[in-house]
Amino acid sequence: MNSPATDPRLSTDSTLLATLTLSDLRLMNDSRFPWLILVPRVEATEIIDLSAPDRTRLLDEIVTVSTALRDVTRCYKLNVAALGNLVRQLHVHIIARFTSDAAWPKPVWGIGEAVAYKAAERDRLADQILGALPR
Amino acid sequence: MNSPATDPRLSTDSTLLATLTLSDLRLMNDSRFPWLILVPRVEATEIIDLSAPDRTRLLDEIVTVSTALRDVTRCYKLNVAALGNLVRQLHVHIIARFTSDAAWPKPVWGIGEAVAYKAAERDRLADQILGALPR
Repeated sequence: MNSPATDPRLSTDSTLLATLTLSDLRLMNDSRFPWLILVPRVEATEIIDLSAPDRTRLLDEIVTVSTALRDVTRCYKLNVAALGNLVRQLHVHIIARFTSDAAWPKPVWGIGEAVAYKAAERDRLADQILGALPR
Repeated sequence: MNSPATDPRLSTDSTLLATLTLSDLRLMNDSRFPWLILVPRVEATEIIDLSAPDRTRLLDEIVTVSTALRDVTRCYKLNVAALGNLVRQLHVHIIARFTSDAAWPKPVWGIGEAVAYKAAERDRLADQILGALPR
């Protein structure tokens, strides 16, 4: 089965970091929050639309990516969410939160305007995250 | 090991519907949104703090409860999220969203004021949800 194209709003707002077993791992281009997205390469809107094996793969990838993000950022809290109100293609947000961040303690969605990374800053974070993922 | 007490903000804002294998299933007392919470009965702040078997149990309960909530409400979208910025005790929100609801398309957290259910209305929804869970 062909993979669905990534929704253009996701691909515009984020950068592909890695192709995991089920999902593309993407970094949101908003330097206010270390913010990753998992986008399973299957047609689905909800987690419950995935097959049972793909749900298990998604959980494994959430765990792996959450662990790497917490290790790299030493964040105060992770926010993990599948919302999809604006972009229906299934995607899971994994966000590192700090009590000093621009939205705390609110959720990040719809708060202010994204602040794009400088290329070097984005590359450094991407390298750190990829380095923290298991081989 | 003793289970931790449910955080008082969670117990004040919601009603216990069922005791699942890992988690308490609670209904938020906000009639604007059919809004359930899973509260694992273990000490944890993040999904990645759970043991691997408990993570699998949590995924199973997310799937079971999401399926029941969608079946009962015929919602347009599910929102599934572990945030925990205000209440650090691990809990997973499972919310039925409609394009006509009070927050759409925004996330529900921090939007306006909760509107408490009438008792009969809450009991009917609770009965529907419990009836839709597998025996």
